[in-house]
Amino acid sequence: MRVTILGGGGFLGRKLARRLAAEGAATHLTLADMAEPPPLDAPFPVTCVAADVTDAAALERAIPDGTDVVVHLAAVVSAAAEADYDLGLAVNLRGTLAVIERCRGLARPPRVVFTSSVASFGGGQDAMLPDDARQLPANSYGAQKAAAELLLQDASRRGMLDAVSIRLPTVIIRPGRPNKAASSFVSAILREPLLGLETPLPVAEEFRVWVCSPRLAVEWLRHAMTMDTAPLGLDRGVNPPGLCVSVREMLGVLSPAQRALVRPAPDAGVQAIVGGWPAAFAATRARALGFAPQPGMDAILATFLEDDLAATRAERGL
Amino acid sequence: MRVTILGGGGFLGRKLARRLAAEGAATHLTLADMAEPPPLDAPFPVTCVAADVTDAAALERAIPDGTDVVVHLAAVVSAAAEADYDLGLAVNLRGTLAVIERCRGLARPPRVVFTSSVASFGGGQDAMLPDDARQLPANSYGAQKAAAELLLQDASRRGMLDAVSIRLPTVIIRPGRPNKAASSFVSAILREPLLGLETPLPVAEEFRVWVCSPRLAVEWLRHAMTMDTAPLGLDRGVNPPGLCVSVREMLGVLSPAQRALVRPAPDAGVQAIVGGWPAAFAATRARALGFAPQPGMDAILATFLEDDLAATRAERGL
Repeated sequence: MRVTILGGGGFLGRKLARRLAAEGAATHLTLADMAEPPPLDAPFPVTCVAADVTDAAALERAIPDGTDVVVHLAAVVSAAAEADYDLGLAVNLRGTLAVIERCRGLARPPRVVFTSSVASFGGGQDAMLPDDARQLPANSYGAQKAAAELLLQDASRRGMLDAVSIRLPTVIIRPGRPNKAASSFVSAILREPLLGLETPLPVAEEFRVWVCSPRLAVEWLRHAMTMDTAPLGLDRGVNPPGLCVSVREMLGVLSPAQRALVRPAPDAGVQAIVGGWPAAFAATRARALGFAPQPGMDAILATFLEDDLAATRAERGL
Repeated sequence: MRVTILGGGGFLGRKLARRLAAEGAATHLTLADMAEPPPLDAPFPVTCVAADVTDAAALERAIPDGTDVVVHLAAVVSAAAEADYDLGLAVNLRGTLAVIERCRGLARPPRVVFTSSVASFGGGQDAMLPDDARQLPANSYGAQKAAAELLLQDASRRGMLDAVSIRLPTVIIRPGRPNKAASSFVSAILREPLLGLETPLPVAEEFRVWVCSPRLAVEWLRHAMTMDTAPLGLDRGVNPPGLCVSVREMLGVLSPAQRALVRPAPDAGVQAIVGGWPAAFAATRARALGFAPQPGMDAILATFLEDDLAATRAERGL
């Protein structure tokens, strides 16, 4: 299995690459990102390339002939796509068109695992979204992801490639520092106190979010790489079984001293974006397709402590 | 009101232009199409330009500064987009992106009336689609139209333009000759017998279609040009109130002699495309928004006899 990860230098891309290395699950891996990803120890050859997904020539290097699976994680995230319309459109939509164009040039149509997002849905806090819910995004990131899904679905129907689009929940607890995703606070309100640091809370404690751990997100990507896509039929979008959790429930895994580090700081800009995202999905189809469900908040905390706390401390010099 | 019609040389574009001229509803009209549209008599200046919607420079001429309304009818239709993926993508998706790009360059965000299609839905013959039905297209034309709708919706939310996307039913009875739309037969089975000509019927008589007359389609476009868009909110897609009718009911408006000219000729290719299109919509929201409903088949026949039969005879030398 020859695999390419676009966005292979990013948070999930790196974790997926390590998982493939630990499994010995590939015969060759290409890691591509805007900046050349660092080398990776693996029992198979790993090529690291600098490649912009909007650049057709770069995509030829990133997706070499004979590629079986393309995991397309390259994206401009929510708040960044909202702040820079042209950049979001270039990467999230035109970049995906360029990936389709490259994939249809391969001798064999590759599996394409695409990360879409719950941000492609509207409905807000009170919605419980069925598997066939309409995507009515209230942000440019979600609109670009939903449009890209339609194009990948059509390319799959035409036999140019074989796509699975996973609408990822908000992934928590992300290591590192806050990023430009409007949902960045959802990780920060746990990560920062666990590091002994204060952190602002831009929403109310009743605010609910649809979440999953980084480890489970990688598990879903891995499953989508080799699952049987015949049961998907025309519909290549999957709402995986995340966890619906309130901020209060999230903060419940912290000690009282840690919890005291979370300071209310209402932010209308963040609320305007994340307030439109639904927090609850039926996710019935995904379960039947073999996507594992997210256990509770304790499991999410344990995953961070096992997988990412030490590296985060080291990275931030704490 | 300064108006541009992209696809202004086409069937609906021409009819809309004549309607605006009869009404005296514009202060200036630009008709743009691949080939320069013929001149039009009107009580206001009319500029005719050759412009490819995928060409940014041409769009500057087609949508001059000060344009208030852009009616975007330029498209590669269903069977043509299925036969030529690249052409469909270039016109239906990239062309709409170029229109958005031009519109955001204007000093005032223009109204954009976009023709989407029932082909952007799946579900087939047995479905009754609610107003919030998901678009799960089974053809490239529908996928490109649905993706374009998402981008127009996002551009509206951002205040770059003010879009209304009308998912047109199959428009019957089209004058002229059969075209590359997979639904071409739906007009042909009435038009050809009315001209005294034989015509093949590629589907069963039980086959149902969601239809409207050209005159009503133009009425909807005209309404969308100046309607209040505030009640639309985020959701810029409208399913107008067409008519659900079976082939048998359609043929019921013909005389026995005319009906004998319709010869069963099952066509698996046509069935594969049109069989996936739903034939029934609730269209509740559109009625509340002031879109007039389609009366029955008798009205559709009368419209053709009044508006298009003579011109069709002349055009075809009959």
